[in-house]
Amino acid sequence: MHVFDQAIALSARGEGTYSGATSPAYGNMVGPFGGVTAATVLKAVLQHPALLGEPVALTVNFAAALADGAFTVHARPVRTNRSTQHWLMEITQPGPDGTESTVLTATAVTAARRETWGTDDAPMPAVLSPEAVGRPNMAALVEWVRRYDIRIAEGAIPTAWDGSGDASRSTLWVRDEPARMLDFCNLTAMADVFFPRVWLRRATRVPAGTVSMTVYFHAGSVQLAGTGTGTGWLLGQAQAQGFRNGFFDQTAQVWNEAGALLATTHQVVYYKE
Amino acid sequence: MHVFDQAIALSARGEGTYSGATSPAYGNMVGPFGGVTAATVLKAVLQHPALLGEPVALTVNFAAALADGAFTVHARPVRTNRSTQHWLMEITQPGPDGTESTVLTATAVTAARRETWGTDDAPMPAVLSPEAVGRPNMAALVEWVRRYDIRIAEGAIPTAWDGSGDASRSTLWVRDEPARMLDFCNLTAMADVFFPRVWLRRATRVPAGTVSMTVYFHAGSVQLAGTGTGTGWLLGQAQAQGFRNGFFDQTAQVWNEAGALLATTHQVVYYKE
Repeated sequence: MHVFDQAIALSARGEGTYSGATSPAYGNMVGPFGGVTAATVLKAVLQHPALLGEPVALTVNFAAALADGAFTVHARPVRTNRSTQHWLMEITQPGPDGTESTVLTATAVTAARRETWGTDDAPMPAVLSPEAVGRPNMAALVEWVRRYDIRIAEGAIPTAWDGSGDASRSTLWVRDEPARMLDFCNLTAMADVFFPRVWLRRATRVPAGTVSMTVYFHAGSVQLAGTGTGTGWLLGQAQAQGFRNGFFDQTAQVWNEAGALLATTHQVVYYKE
Repeated sequence: MHVFDQAIALSARGEGTYSGATSPAYGNMVGPFGGVTAATVLKAVLQHPALLGEPVALTVNFAAALADGAFTVHARPVRTNRSTQHWLMEITQPGPDGTESTVLTATAVTAARRETWGTDDAPMPAVLSPEAVGRPNMAALVEWVRRYDIRIAEGAIPTAWDGSGDASRSTLWVRDEPARMLDFCNLTAMADVFFPRVWLRRATRVPAGTVSMTVYFHAGSVQLAGTGTGTGWLLGQAQAQGFRNGFFDQTAQVWNEAGALLATTHQVVYYKE
């Protein structure tokens, strides 16, 4: 079993209640990589017996640091229409007094998608190929970075923290390491691999953490599974739009190697100072 | 009382439970304008006695068409940290069998914001001034459009539905009509005034409706209140990134007249055909 599938594994404890555990393989500065946590909460929806269709939108709010160890995921369809379904999810862990407390809230929309007119309006940017960028070049300051092959073509992590930054955009190639077939779960995690925009914009390393993250899925499961059969690269581009009073936003796009837009994603991130 | 404040008025029925009613003044094709509904659910948080800080992020999922008439808003702080708070909200209405059913789910993050380093990384686009654009020029196909003065500088609603569209970006000036002081509620509503991107991109009018919408607030209440003291214009720019299988996304920015980024916002929208 792939290390990612081990990390997001859930065992059903009853209708819409699942047990999971954090994986040291995806460790972050404190607790696990948020992208894997977001993928885990989506997985609870995907393996729920009442599921209708496939994910269209996912919003995950990181309410508190997830402690290393066991956690409980709750997923509940709150509204089922003819072709769309709305979900509420939550992750709980025992608090200091032993009672379960909320560490994450999330919502999702799933839908039976139909053939319609369509087009991409965000062309894949032209950058050096992964081979031309060379070896993985995102400094593995934390463990989860080693679970990906990330090749930053533009906007690398500063090598000198000298306050000289002047832009907040990064463009990077990414795939699971080792390779894994693409699906909604690892796509969700890879939508969160961009290092904090504030580090790049300021060339200053300050504590930062995602507070809320949204992913819109433009591709369905068939298109995802057909994307390079697990060895294909994704191209991601992320940039901040505003930094103010301790929070910045990030807007990002994720394409497959063939240039199809797979997901667009946004997050708001806390930063200190 | 301003017509917008009448539309979003809530009366407390108990801890975190409020009664509201749709306003014909903000009527849409079916039910009310979604921007006003999003503002109403945020208002439930803002008038909750346990509120900590000010809104940073709001996500609203439109689970079903809100029926004209009375509704109930539920708002609950699920996690309160030292400087951030996480909220779950819901709107319910009686279903066909008389029992309350969920028509909207939402989450919010509020925070006590601090003085930090900051900058805008999304400069306000240079467009014609509202005066140079001239009179309101967004066709009032539905009632709520009359509650705003909208002057589209770029990417107007097509005048011929001939399938000739080739871009999905609009840039427009907007303010309440009549004028109203800016706060988190009317800013939220104005983040949703862009007509469906699919109409522009295809020059084809197909049924479309927002499924999920997120707003990140970069400005605090003091900066909002100081924005033209109610008569200032906001500039909004919206564009789609992908249209596929019945859903498209929209990413947008909202600045005040002085060029400060007040909010960034995203939505995923259902479209037919």
